[in-house]
Amino acid sequence: MSENTAVTAPDILRCAYMEIVVTDLQRSRDFYVDVLGLVVTEEDENAIYLRSLEEFIHHNIVLKKGPEAAVGVFSYRVRTPEDVGLAEEFYKARGCRVERRKEGFVKGIGDSVRVEDPLGFPYEFFYEVDHVERLAWHYELYTPGALVRLDHFNQVTPDVPKAEKYMEDLGFRVTEAIRDAEGTTYAAWMRRKPTVHDTAMTGGDGPRMHHIAFATHEKHNILSICDKLGALRMSDHIERGPGRHGVSNAFYLYLRDPDGHRIEIYTQDYYTGDPDNPVVVWDVHDNQRRDWWGTPVVPSWYTDASRVLDLDGNLVPLVTRTDASELEETIGADGFSYTRKEEEESMPEWKKGEFKLGHQL
Amino acid sequence: MSENTAVTAPDILRCAYMEIVVTDLQRSRDFYVDVLGLVVTEEDENAIYLRSLEEFIHHNIVLKKGPEAAVGVFSYRVRTPEDVGLAEEFYKARGCRVERRKEGFVKGIGDSVRVEDPLGFPYEFFYEVDHVERLAWHYELYTPGALVRLDHFNQVTPDVPKAEKYMEDLGFRVTEAIRDAEGTTYAAWMRRKPTVHDTAMTGGDGPRMHHIAFATHEKHNILSICDKLGALRMSDHIERGPGRHGVSNAFYLYLRDPDGHRIEIYTQDYYTGDPDNPVVVWDVHDNQRRDWWGTPVVPSWYTDASRVLDLDGNLVPLVTRTDASELEETIGADGFSYTRKEEEESMPEWKKGEFKLGHQL
Amino acid sequence: MSENTAVTAPDILRCAYMEIVVTDLQRSRDFYVDVLGLVVTEEDENAIYLRSLEEFIHHNIVLKKGPEAAVGVFSYRVRTPEDVGLAEEFYKARGCRVERRKEGFVKGIGDSVRVEDPLGFPYEFFYEVDHVERLAWHYELYTPGALVRLDHFNQVTPDVPKAEKYMEDLGFRVTEAIRDAEGTTYAAWMRRKPTVHDTAMTGGDGPRMHHIAFATHEKHNILSICDKLGALRMSDHIERGPGRHGVSNAFYLYLRDPDGHRIEIYTQDYYTGDPDNPVVVWDVHDNQRRDWWGTPVVPSWYTDASRVLDLDGNLVPLVTRTDASELEETIGADGFSYTRKEEEESMPEWKKGEFKLGHQL
Amino acid sequence: MSENTAVTAPDILRCAYMEIVVTDLQRSRDFYVDVLGLVVTEEDENAIYLRSLEEFIHHNIVLKKGPEAAVGVFSYRVRTPEDVGLAEEFYKARGCRVERRKEGFVKGIGDSVRVEDPLGFPYEFFYEVDHVERLAWHYELYTPGALVRLDHFNQVTPDVPKAEKYMEDLGFRVTEAIRDAEGTTYAAWMRRKPTVHDTAMTGGDGPRMHHIAFATHEKHNILSICDKLGALRMSDHIERGPGRHGVSNAFYLYLRDPDGHRIEIYTQDYYTGDPDNPVVVWDVHDNQRRDWWGTPVVPSWYTDASRVLDLDGNLVPLVTRTDASELEETIGADGFSYTRKEEEESMPEWKKGEFKLGHQL
Repeated sequence: MSENTAVTAPDILRCAYMEIVVTDLQRSRDFYVDVLGLVVTEEDENAIYLRSLEEFIHHNIVLKKGPEAAVGVFSYRVRTPEDVGLAEEFYKARGCRVERRKEGFVKGIGDSVRVEDPLGFPYEFFYEVDHVERLAWHYELYTPGALVRLDHFNQVTPDVPKAEKYMEDLGFRVTEAIRDAEGTTYAAWMRRKPTVHDTAMTGGDGPRMHHIAFATHEKHNILSICDKLGALRMSDHIERGPGRHGVSNAFYLYLRDPDGHRIEIYTQDYYTGDPDNPVVVWDVHDNQRRDWWGTPVVPSWYTDASRVLDLDGNLVPLVTRTDASELEETIGADGFSYTRKEEEESMPEWKKGEFKLGHQL
Repeated sequence: MSENTAVTAPDILRCAYMEIVVTDLQRSRDFYVDVLGLVVTEEDENAIYLRSLEEFIHHNIVLKKGPEAAVGVFSYRVRTPEDVGLAEEFYKARGCRVERRKEGFVKGIGDSVRVEDPLGFPYEFFYEVDHVERLAWHYELYTPGALVRLDHFNQVTPDVPKAEKYMEDLGFRVTEAIRDAEGTTYAAWMRRKPTVHDTAMTGGDGPRMHHIAFATHEKHNILSICDKLGALRMSDHIERGPGRHGVSNAFYLYLRDPDGHRIEIYTQDYYTGDPDNPVVVWDVHDNQRRDWWGTPVVPSWYTDASRVLDLDGNLVPLVTRTDASELEETIGADGFSYTRKEEEESMPEWKKGEFKLGHQL
Repeated sequence: MSENTAVTAPDILRCAYMEIVVTDLQRSRDFYVDVLGLVVTEEDENAIYLRSLEEFIHHNIVLKKGPEAAVGVFSYRVRTPEDVGLAEEFYKARGCRVERRKEGFVKGIGDSVRVEDPLGFPYEFFYEVDHVERLAWHYELYTPGALVRLDHFNQVTPDVPKAEKYMEDLGFRVTEAIRDAEGTTYAAWMRRKPTVHDTAMTGGDGPRMHHIAFATHEKHNILSICDKLGALRMSDHIERGPGRHGVSNAFYLYLRDPDGHRIEIYTQDYYTGDPDNPVVVWDVHDNQRRDWWGTPVVPSWYTDASRVLDLDGNLVPLVTRTDASELEETIGADGFSYTRKEEEESMPEWKKGEFKLGHQL
Repeated sequence: MSENTAVTAPDILRCAYMEIVVTDLQRSRDFYVDVLGLVVTEEDENAIYLRSLEEFIHHNIVLKKGPEAAVGVFSYRVRTPEDVGLAEEFYKARGCRVERRKEGFVKGIGDSVRVEDPLGFPYEFFYEVDHVERLAWHYELYTPGALVRLDHFNQVTPDVPKAEKYMEDLGFRVTEAIRDAEGTTYAAWMRRKPTVHDTAMTGGDGPRMHHIAFATHEKHNILSICDKLGALRMSDHIERGPGRHGVSNAFYLYLRDPDGHRIEIYTQDYYTGDPDNPVVVWDVHDNQRRDWWGTPVVPSWYTDASRVLDLDGNLVPLVTRTDASELEETIGADGFSYTRKEEEESMPEWKKGEFKLGHQL
């Protein structure tokens, strides 16, 4: 593959929507609409277009019926109609497969380009979009766990430094990262809009979709989603959390939808819009990097992710990660994590009993 | 031991304070005062008297310096001075060792009786107490995790039905319990004041103190305690939670103090003051009984507890539980828990991967 | 009227429900059920029986269709069936009209006595009641402003000291009061259950019902009710607040229902169950007594209240208050309030502009 | 004044800090540091440099000692060092007085330009700034009312359409506005960073500073500031709120500092970063525009504001507003506001009593 990377990157505004293939549309509707309270903009027998309460573009998620759970596309909005062309050129110059449709690939979206990006992910860029009502003031529609905004994507890819380089070429800025003293990068967070991220790259066999995240206004909104899942006897949809992230400083919860797609509910990270915004680097052995309270990460959170489709709708083959694994480094048989660097020997008696579950895996 | 249980029980108002023996008074002060924000009513080189922000009696906890971490007494306030005498008679009639001191056993408390109760616990009953300022309106003293009230005790004892019978004789009412279809009782919650409990009896080798619980006003107050422990690199003091209890419906967090004593932070259970208040019985196999969100209970929470002292200050010997163990029944090698009764076979593929950590222990 | 007040008072548990006469049943249903989210236990063409989410007795409010907005009864639950008889005797001994019905006066309630009390209020006492499901764990039913408990009543009566005396005879304890240096009492709070009150007596022309109060778990629940009323373009149903009370230290909001009946939403007062619980007395001129933040009380809150019915369903005539009026003392033409006692002269220039609205009335 | 407005506007990132002249530095320190919890980056006998908890630039506010309360400068950060020069050219082209200092005007800030803008406001633009620690993770420093971010400025100016035009030339985008059917504009909100505003223009005699706003994470943080002011007997520093804005949909509180400077505490507006973000226009007669709950705006909030200084440190003379006044149009003698457009006649009886305070002014 020959590359010409001197072309101008499109001016990306933000992550805008994800197309998710689900195997039982009604079951997924029950989950996303009745349980999570996302708003239906439009639906038919093959797809449901959903948005969050503060959104004014047509949708933030498309649930598409299909034979196998997967992700159809990660879609970003660009600043101008011309930026769609810049995106097309950007990927053509990298030898990537691109497909442009003036009429768009899904309802509500106009002129768009879809690409198979250098990491194997299906990416989309668009400007034209139908406006719908921003429901921010419609408090009569709010549930206790109201989702108000699409916040970010998270992708699994084997070579995180390679992904960082490509995404920086595309105009993203790294805000935080997990690395180790040997120089391995385990994950990196990168943004266009001035939050901690529009997408993150998590090290692992990829390309896969790790999660899609929606924001609430407050922490109690997230807790109420757990309460409701308990009431519905669906608590096994809670995979991890709620908790406080070290990375991003946000409050979080991870759910799994009926097909196993992972959804994060997220609130209260910080402004990152200055060009010299300080990058925060976390030591992979810091036990508070993924959860500020030291709660162990469940292994499935590291191992499971959703496959992605190419532009023909076929599963993209996986490439195995060869760099060190965060799971193995931190909670595997030989892994270790510290709460206070270089102080593990000074543990009081009762702590040596190692009550934290992470120690027992 | 011959018993005459026909005597009148004292009219107990509420759990009032616990005397806790700690091995390093300054280190414990750092934890209870600087980290948790309890208010010092009085202190000297051997003891620190602490109270919560809405309390008007002298203290809710006494930290007492000693050679070995233990619990000195569980203390209850009674309705009248005469009830102290009734308490004395109640235990004498049961052949228990009792000791009455008109001047009290600790600062701030007057005429009191201490007993070694039928379960082996050191219990105290008093009416006379020094009033101190109720700091409820002193918002300039509130921290983000402000503890406003002592809520309850929790005790470990091998024979829970025996404990229920004794406590009902003492005037307590059961509000909730964990039992199984075979008739085993794993734990019971009992109250005097009209909340879910003033104390609970948890099945296990005893007598031991499982935890002492303080209330906050809101859930975010509890989350902020975790955030602060993270900031202080003390996150390993968080043992379990935060989460939503099934039993009690309260929001909770369990911490361990520097000696390993367990403190619960708790908020928002419900009114139980009617005599026909419905008792809630939970199936021990219900995965949402201890945590409504299905988060697994860490084993240390079942196994660890604080030893208690007799009236001479010696450790009370342990009696082993012979009934079935909740830990073994639910998360041990042969244990099981369900989220939806009788539906485990209908799990979708991704759920069979068993991402919930509890499945892996 | 000859009185024999030596009889034993009934053992009252708590305020239990209020019967409210409304002029348009459907319109009131829209308000209490669709807007406030109270749960319908039972309804027919003449009455709707509503309860809060943590309640297990049949109802906390009865909306009864009638020609004129009024209050039918203030109802308390007593500890035993025998206490109903004690209540009957208590009022007979005071020469009050009493009516006892073994089958109850409303659905869901058994043997009851209704009385026209010495202050002119229709009071009811009952023990027998149908149990219904406590919905505390049914988070799928919670709205953002979920009402979880009936907290208290508030009554308008011309002679507050007389009311205090009578209520103390009935077994209530005063927890807080507003008085002045001249010995006038403007309002008093009194409780049976160990919160700040089951009812309060507010000085004014009476007998009238000032408000009925429901509790939420957290402050944001109260804010969300305001947000929803705004979204429904019903913000003119908000009369006062939200704010923080001085008295009770609770967070509050006052609404007016479609007939003008006042409802308070209330959260987070404090435990008052000890017999020597300190009584808090507020100076009527303390600007923070009614609102801790100094927000002026709107005049309608002082002047408006609901008329009450006698046992025949006729309006009870009003008796005019002859003691000083809190409204006149504090925000009338000659009234004054202070934020810092004896410091008004030291106001900086910009404060002399008197931006607080209260100064302008 | 001849103008050449064809020059390129600087690329402004965000509002960055305000220089405020206070008459008693210690008294202001007590307020901003001890009461509000802002963090001191640096201080000397003449000035105090303060920042919010998530900030990484040197300061968000400079309190400068002076003989008369006023505002020294509204300062914005630009994207590159070159943008300072663009700002200089932008204002020179408009015939404005400009002063550039390579070493900056205050500590912590490098190369800057200060201007007397076309509306008479002292504006500053800079890129170079000292980095300080972002304290976001330092939860041990958080108070219950923690201020995490500078959110926006608000300016009073007589001709709002003129101000809109100028600010759009400077690169700002209008997000919301208050207008009437006759075409009068009463206020406009405009942003660079993708929130509702970096500054707003409020119609009135100007140039004056209406307020500076800091953000909290959650609504309870704002309530706790009121609680603390009550506890300190400083509740008369609360001017308006807390409440929910119509405009911006944010939760708000307005305070007055010891010199009368107005500070807003603000949380939870929405993302506005798309170029076609829908502009929200509010009718000046809509009673929910300024407060979504219909709470009347206190007159001082309309009438009071801080004078601003020119580059020599002299007060800038005021220009009187000639357009209609929002105060007069809505709550003056002839003013009116509606909750439900065209429905005032259908008021029920009890509402005609007009309990809302706004009706009485």
